[in-house]
Amino acid sequence: MKQIHMAERAASQPPDVQGEADPRRIPIDRVGVRGLRHPLQVEDRSGHRQATVAELTMTVSLAHDTKGAHMSRFVEMINELGEPLSVRSFRRLLEGMTERLEAPNGEIEIRFPYFRQKHAPVSGVASLMDYRAAFIGRRHDGHTDIWLQVAAPATSLCPCSKKISEYGAHNQRSEIMIEARIEDIIWLEELIEIAEGAASAEVYGVLKRTDEKYVTEQAYDNPKFVEDILRELAIALEADERIRAFRISCENFESIHNHSAFAELARDKDKDKDAALR
Amino acid sequence: MKQIHMAERAASQPPDVQGEADPRRIPIDRVGVRGLRHPLQVEDRSGHRQATVAELTMTVSLAHDTKGAHMSRFVEMINELGEPLSVRSFRRLLEGMTERLEAPNGEIEIRFPYFRQKHAPVSGVASLMDYRAAFIGRRHDGHTDIWLQVAAPATSLCPCSKKISEYGAHNQRSEIMIEARIEDIIWLEELIEIAEGAASAEVYGVLKRTDEKYVTEQAYDNPKFVEDILRELAIALEADERIRAFRISCENFESIHNHSAFAELARDKDKDKDAALR
Amino acid sequence: MKQIHMAERAASQPPDVQGEADPRRIPIDRVGVRGLRHPLQVEDRSGHRQATVAELTMTVSLAHDTKGAHMSRFVEMINELGEPLSVRSFRRLLEGMTERLEAPNGEIEIRFPYFRQKHAPVSGVASLMDYRAAFIGRRHDGHTDIWLQVAAPATSLCPCSKKISEYGAHNQRSEIMIEARIEDIIWLEELIEIAEGAASAEVYGVLKRTDEKYVTEQAYDNPKFVEDILRELAIALEADERIRAFRISCENFESIHNHSAFAELARDKDKDKDAALR
Amino acid sequence: MKQIHMAERAASQPPDVQGEADPRRIPIDRVGVRGLRHPLQVEDRSGHRQATVAELTMTVSLAHDTKGAHMSRFVEMINELGEPLSVRSFRRLLEGMTERLEAPNGEIEIRFPYFRQKHAPVSGVASLMDYRAAFIGRRHDGHTDIWLQVAAPATSLCPCSKKISEYGAHNQRSEIMIEARIEDIIWLEELIEIAEGAASAEVYGVLKRTDEKYVTEQAYDNPKFVEDILRELAIALEADERIRAFRISCENFESIHNHSAFAELARDKDKDKDAALR
Repeated sequence: MKQIHMAERAASQPPDVQGEADPRRIPIDRVGVRGLRHPLQVEDRSGHRQATVAELTMTVSLAHDTKGAHMSRFVEMINELGEPLSVRSFRRLLEGMTERLEAPNGEIEIRFPYFRQKHAPVSGVASLMDYRAAFIGRRHDGHTDIWLQVAAPATSLCPCSKKISEYGAHNQRSEIMIEARIEDIIWLEELIEIAEGAASAEVYGVLKRTDEKYVTEQAYDNPKFVEDILRELAIALEADERIRAFRISCENFESIHNHSAFAELARDKDKDKDAALR
Repeated sequence: MKQIHMAERAASQPPDVQGEADPRRIPIDRVGVRGLRHPLQVEDRSGHRQATVAELTMTVSLAHDTKGAHMSRFVEMINELGEPLSVRSFRRLLEGMTERLEAPNGEIEIRFPYFRQKHAPVSGVASLMDYRAAFIGRRHDGHTDIWLQVAAPATSLCPCSKKISEYGAHNQRSEIMIEARIEDIIWLEELIEIAEGAASAEVYGVLKRTDEKYVTEQAYDNPKFVEDILRELAIALEADERIRAFRISCENFESIHNHSAFAELARDKDKDKDAALR
Repeated sequence: MKQIHMAERAASQPPDVQGEADPRRIPIDRVGVRGLRHPLQVEDRSGHRQATVAELTMTVSLAHDTKGAHMSRFVEMINELGEPLSVRSFRRLLEGMTERLEAPNGEIEIRFPYFRQKHAPVSGVASLMDYRAAFIGRRHDGHTDIWLQVAAPATSLCPCSKKISEYGAHNQRSEIMIEARIEDIIWLEELIEIAEGAASAEVYGVLKRTDEKYVTEQAYDNPKFVEDILRELAIALEADERIRAFRISCENFESIHNHSAFAELARDKDKDKDAALR
Repeated sequence: MKQIHMAERAASQPPDVQGEADPRRIPIDRVGVRGLRHPLQVEDRSGHRQATVAELTMTVSLAHDTKGAHMSRFVEMINELGEPLSVRSFRRLLEGMTERLEAPNGEIEIRFPYFRQKHAPVSGVASLMDYRAAFIGRRHDGHTDIWLQVAAPATSLCPCSKKISEYGAHNQRSEIMIEARIEDIIWLEELIEIAEGAASAEVYGVLKRTDEKYVTEQAYDNPKFVEDILRELAIALEADERIRAFRISCENFESIHNHSAFAELARDKDKDKDAALR
């Protein structure tokens, strides 16, 4: 009965060009869709679901003897997504994708703005802060790696400028990025707190004058180069056993130049066990 | 009583530098915040509330004798926003802003990705399509103008390429933009439908093979230059009495060049009554 | 002879679809090419020719009874450009374009990075600084307007933060934009100097430690809101008789927030003669 | 003698904060400058020097016991650059940087628009085409790797759409990227020709109608998925012994969707000798 239905379908259906054989003997690492935008809900630490808009890249590996991937299946999966994004549901999505595309390997990147309510340090006034966040999953030969990423804006104040100047010190907005391969559940909020804790001062949506005085003086009391910020991040991430590898960076949008100061560091606890101090 | 309260406040509060006098006699057209990101709900035509993430610019005019605007008030207003975005609530937000900042003139731009469920033309498969949308409001000397903007992706197929070639015709993704000053309620969906209706074919999130055949042939049957797309938009918008002015553009990301074909047209029905045919 | 040649050409040439008649009676304000990249030489104040890479938009108006513009002519004109860009050659290019496209109105925007050698304030070390610059020309009904635009990075230091804090003051990179309609020759360098002169301090490519001390203290001695920067720009541009109209803006990429402070002001000396103080 | 000079310098100079010791025992992989713009000349295959504007990232590794890198040295090196960019001069720049910053490891990325004159396929009309190009160098423990990168726009026409439709086929602009680790001199032009040769058709700055007919039919005769383009690139790069490793990708800006089709493949001939067919 099913066979008859399939035969009828075949008669009325256009041919499956992607499913044809390919003679060139070149397997492809990653093929899929990119720049796909979709509304999503993300589970946050407080148990709420935060509504956001994501941009997705979804790819699978392609065997050397198959002509093409079935691109519409990626988009269908996202349109069928019935649950909010969490580490658990992301893992299911990734593993489901490799099954549905019949591929041994697959990768998903979901990038989205993420918000957190913060309270101004003196007045306590509440406002939302926006962060760039991402879930990045890689499934390879039956093994799945999950990476979380956050990019947090913050204030950096230059230690050199402070030391050499009679008064004042140049400071600027920085972007602190943490990408962590996790073994257990970690909340985006935890990574954000680590990022913000490494800066000269945090940034906020709303600051009253008493708060502005506070963060100005706090930054001046707490000067940091990009290198300092990176080292404090590394120490914090090194100490967290749930994090098995990390890639961190800091970019200072220098207020005295038209270019950035930048630093980057990668560490894989499982691979680099002996390489912490080179 | 109020004066006493103010005096106490002044004692404990840092001085209000923005509120000082300015002697330079230069009024400023627009001062405020830009690049502010915030989650929002938008009322859609079906009566639902769509969750999205907006980027806002909020400005007011500043009198020649005042030193500065109180920037935190703009951000506070967005953090206090208790209702979904609609033409009505947007008007209230704009008028409330000029009151709160004590300014005769003010402008708000709220830009956000907007989604609409579409059904593939043959299979009927449902998927979401993303659009760029904006509410733009300008309050000037007691009068408020509200503009809605949508930018819709679509397919354009070149009439020249089709006519001169034995077979085939180059086609590409285009972006069709409509910005309309409205007098009554108009839904973003209505502008999107006008935009998509002017193209060679619509684009979709998911297309099955029967749908891909349909849109391929539809585009080939329906060749359009940027100029054609613009003229069909103009005719449709001209006919809608709720729209008092419009600015429309179309950009074709040419598949045979590394630059775009582009066309633009502005019309103010109230000002240009005699100027439709130059 | 020429007619025979033309007839032969017509026989062997594909039809001119763009040149066909259009019955819809909709004239188009602007049609042409966008996102066209091309290397250019720009004449600088010192008499040298600076090599840069430009991005161009070139459009003309289209009569209501013509189907389309001949897009390749825009690109041909840029490929044939034999002289460096200056106010004079830009005017010729714009007027030549409207002739070649047989259109009454036309517009050209040429945007490019522009460099200027600067000397650090104490050490005198030389380095290049980059600016965003543009030539914008509009020809309408036989009259040509030329606008020059520069966007200069600079340092702004917050007067409120300085006044309310025991020590330190938040500061950040700003972008100061001047767009000027000119009647005579004005060099981009002159606009850049006006822009940089209105900031708390200038930014440089290379600063030695003695210079860093200097600019840090200079910014602290010279606090400015976006409003202050705008007002000083307005005073300088108002005084220059070669400038007939201007649009200026300043955006501070706040170091204590994740959004910008922004101000904008437009002035047309010929139109607003009585409106300088509202 | 030198010591006395240093002592005098120290007396008049502000302290070297970057050169201080750091106790945290965290070495940093990469620290330096990012987003630095500078005009450059690039040697092209024809022996000419092409003027362009580059954006640079320059970083070095930092030992665990040093507080910070001397950022101004990176910028000084670029301001002192006296020769056009070529594979040879780039290698010298990279090795000079690690010496000047006294670091074992260092990386430089120089990204710039690159132009090539092309002749339209039938009329022979000449025009410039723009590409994104980059030199990427990594020096690690005394060994230097040089990568060249080009991203070329091209036309792709969908094999599935062609096969299933009665007439027409959707096509679009694509971007084909090749990044190659080279052992000998390879010209950017050679990589561009490989990239363009793998597409359904090349794109051009100027096409006359006879050319437009040609490329329209050529693309229709030559349908390619992203996967096909990638496989043809891989075959060509595999065969070139001067290329020791490559990373290639293709992104199709689909004309029937608002997202891209994307494929990517990496290969290291020295490492993957047995892994060509997985």
